[in-house]
Amino acid sequence: MTNREDRSARNARHDKLRQSRARSPYLSIPFQTIHNSLTPVELLDGAGVERIHDASMRILEEFGIDFLDAEALDLWQQAGATVDHTKRRVKMERGLVLELVGKAPERFTWHARNPAHTIQIGGDQVVFAPNGGTVFASDLDNGRRPGTLADFHNFQKLVQMTGVLHVAGEQLVVPHDVQVSQRHLERLWAGFTLTDKAMMEAAHGRVIPADAIAAAEIIFGSPLPADGPVIGGIINANSPLRYDDRMIGGLITFARAGQVTIITPFILAGVMSPVTTAAALAQQNAEALAGIALTQLARPGAPVIYGGFTTNVDLKSGAPAFGTPEGAWALLLGAQMARRYRLPYRGSGTLTNAKVADAQAATETQWSIWPCMLARTNFVMHAVGWLESGLTASLEKFVMDVEHLAMFQHFLQGIDVSDAALALAEIGQIGPGGHHLGTQHTLDRYTTAFYQPFLADRLAYETWELAGRFDAPMRANLLWKELLAQYEAPPLDAAKRDALADFIARRKRELAGVELYR
Amino acid sequence: MTNREDRSARNARHDKLRQSRARSPYLSIPFQTIHNSLTPVELLDGAGVERIHDASMRILEEFGIDFLDAEALDLWQQAGATVDHTKRRVKMERGLVLELVGKAPERFTWHARNPAHTIQIGGDQVVFAPNGGTVFASDLDNGRRPGTLADFHNFQKLVQMTGVLHVAGEQLVVPHDVQVSQRHLERLWAGFTLTDKAMMEAAHGRVIPADAIAAAEIIFGSPLPADGPVIGGIINANSPLRYDDRMIGGLITFARAGQVTIITPFILAGVMSPVTTAAALAQQNAEALAGIALTQLARPGAPVIYGGFTTNVDLKSGAPAFGTPEGAWALLLGAQMARRYRLPYRGSGTLTNAKVADAQAATETQWSIWPCMLARTNFVMHAVGWLESGLTASLEKFVMDVEHLAMFQHFLQGIDVSDAALALAEIGQIGPGGHHLGTQHTLDRYTTAFYQPFLADRLAYETWELAGRFDAPMRANLLWKELLAQYEAPPLDAAKRDALADFIARRKRELAGVELYR
Repeated sequence: MTNREDRSARNARHDKLRQSRARSPYLSIPFQTIHNSLTPVELLDGAGVERIHDASMRILEEFGIDFLDAEALDLWQQAGATVDHTKRRVKMERGLVLELVGKAPERFTWHARNPAHTIQIGGDQVVFAPNGGTVFASDLDNGRRPGTLADFHNFQKLVQMTGVLHVAGEQLVVPHDVQVSQRHLERLWAGFTLTDKAMMEAAHGRVIPADAIAAAEIIFGSPLPADGPVIGGIINANSPLRYDDRMIGGLITFARAGQVTIITPFILAGVMSPVTTAAALAQQNAEALAGIALTQLARPGAPVIYGGFTTNVDLKSGAPAFGTPEGAWALLLGAQMARRYRLPYRGSGTLTNAKVADAQAATETQWSIWPCMLARTNFVMHAVGWLESGLTASLEKFVMDVEHLAMFQHFLQGIDVSDAALALAEIGQIGPGGHHLGTQHTLDRYTTAFYQPFLADRLAYETWELAGRFDAPMRANLLWKELLAQYEAPPLDAAKRDALADFIARRKRELAGVELYR
Repeated sequence: MTNREDRSARNARHDKLRQSRARSPYLSIPFQTIHNSLTPVELLDGAGVERIHDASMRILEEFGIDFLDAEALDLWQQAGATVDHTKRRVKMERGLVLELVGKAPERFTWHARNPAHTIQIGGDQVVFAPNGGTVFASDLDNGRRPGTLADFHNFQKLVQMTGVLHVAGEQLVVPHDVQVSQRHLERLWAGFTLTDKAMMEAAHGRVIPADAIAAAEIIFGSPLPADGPVIGGIINANSPLRYDDRMIGGLITFARAGQVTIITPFILAGVMSPVTTAAALAQQNAEALAGIALTQLARPGAPVIYGGFTTNVDLKSGAPAFGTPEGAWALLLGAQMARRYRLPYRGSGTLTNAKVADAQAATETQWSIWPCMLARTNFVMHAVGWLESGLTASLEKFVMDVEHLAMFQHFLQGIDVSDAALALAEIGQIGPGGHHLGTQHTLDRYTTAFYQPFLADRLAYETWELAGRFDAPMRANLLWKELLAQYEAPPLDAAKRDALADFIARRKRELAGVELYR
């Protein structure tokens, strides 16, 4: 009897859950390969691109790049570059750089543990990845506070539930309540158990990426698949013209294991480069190609993405400025440079200075995501969630940003001009002054004709007022809570789960108290 | 003594005013010709465009357009079209339509009473026009209320002060405290005295446009300039496939006087056309070309703009949906059709369903303005101010929207790749690990290097919090009040001003109590 009642109560809850799910179009957003068929917007013509290329080659040949890591200096020396070991500076001829860059694949397959979530990087394909590297978590109920592991888990669950996001987050938000030496282990555990999407982990030093690879071997089998990577991380240059040992360790460790590196100079024009976009991009190109070349020294053919993260400083406050015309130029031109070398391209999708998810946040976000799409960016990092120059990840902003990503997913499908779509007979039949609401042509397409928003409000003013005058963040606040209440972990083979748990527990013991690169 | 004190107090106020002006970069936004050098984004290839063209020609030939106006039917009959006077329906062969459309100019000059504000329509030039046709005014202090003449004046003053707006508003907001028969006279007076920009007036019926032309003759001299129009208005088709007598009266009156008509079908796909974008655009094209052809029957060579205002209905609520992927498709494809016929193109810049100037409003606005820019729209109507599907004009949204228009003005200038801009010597001189803040190259470009926002907040979180946690609308609220406090009317010759005042007063008497088209 008790059992039967339990089952009945469970069924009732489940029915309620199903009804609730049926209500939210959010969960109907498909996970799918997104092809960007728009002709890329070109900021410069071919001659202009060659001027940026030539300037960047001269930077590498005449000024050089500092690599603050002995192994990297050795690799460069063996390859025939001019190495100054005192300054730890490498000058490289353009022939060497281009030869190495030419070894990187134009496109590659990035395996997810769920094969349905495996992604393709390169060509006309677009991949959306969530927020990374943020320090604070924020929501309307609890405000802005240092991130915790619970926050990290909540973001990772939302990533799993969001069809238009292709990649599991890595440093979605810093879990301040976890010891530094244990954070990557908690992230790996959460990433492999709460999601089944393509994985990332911080490429910081040599220990963290090695642990990430070891964890991946438990999930994917050892050796890792030969036909494509299973994990990757972001490498930032320390602009101007420098890679530090933390980033080089990550670069070499991931690349040598055939895993993904996303080589991304972070340049604030006016501070870390001259103020002019042409100079900032020449420098970005030099830095990016030097890093990409190093991945190919570590392992020829290693999968690598050309990244750009160049924007301008606010010359009044000294703060980084996001979602600016200058940042849009940099995104477009960075993509042109990547295409010149036949490399996949990484941009960023929701960059903003705004402190709250207001109209400024949305405008600056759109000034990031539109240029990303127009540049034909392959890997869109920070595609959701950013606030406050990337210091804060907002739960409301996360689901708000998903709306415009889903709109792009729909928009990029383009339109049908078949006879059925042109519907001449129906136009004639209804004729002047009629309406098309009840026609068979409309009824046949009723549910799929238009992008169906899950957040945008289209109520009449009076209805909206009676319903409580909810603005976009207030509606988003209800939605993320509803989504988290419905989260279910994706299935994971019990033996793999146990082995992963054992590995994580062992490494937690071994690394307790050890100082790691964050 | 008193006089001297007065002068001194005035000087102090003036100094304060000048300082205040120097503080607001809003007033530094230049009025300039904006060239859009981006290659237009093409939604369809040439064959696809021809399919839309052919379908629209078949609509005109086989189904026809209703023209609910005797003079229009006569013009069509004289031109050789097939006219059914009972149905008031006109069927026209494509040869006739294309011959007439071919008489419209590809580009033209639109004179403003201040020659520095004269604009060019067509080619790669972009013109921004403010909100039109809204019913309610809104601001944070007084909320949403039916618009008044004072609201109309405030918007018109802001238009004059906004460098990036090229056109004086016409129906910025309905002045409900003015009798219907007097409203156009109040608008004409305000437009010609509060601004000196290119003028618009409602093209409703035959009386209002005739009064507008008479007023323009007082300002520009009679006859009006032969080398380009001085005033214009918007003509909406009553989709599907119908023009009513109100719009036809405006069309014929303005076109016959050589003034601008902006022929704009307003189609909600799913109601006023089939749900499919291809069908909606074929119908839009048929309606637009029929209206444009009629302008050329009224006066061969009359300046005319091909307008599109096609979006989708929300199939759940029946409400128009704005800032949608479908609306973006329509904007891009509409521009392709206009280019096919060598006509200037009109789109809309800030379409949104949002009730307040929140993130939804900003996102939907960006989903209007980016497609506008990518389509190479020549005349961007509603480029500022919209809320609530165009029912409301918000003072805060107005100045918020100016920010992204100014960003586009900057962005579309593109970048310099000269040797000075590439700054190789400076990159080498600073070298790895340095910074560029104090270099001569930076100092030389300090004030003009980057787009300088007037509204976007780039403060650190703690500073922003201490300053009162102002979000975008709160900052915008301070700004529009500061701007209106600084407004000064542009100079107008006293004799013209007196003559215009006499004309307005006389027509007010003559039209008192007369029923006019609104």
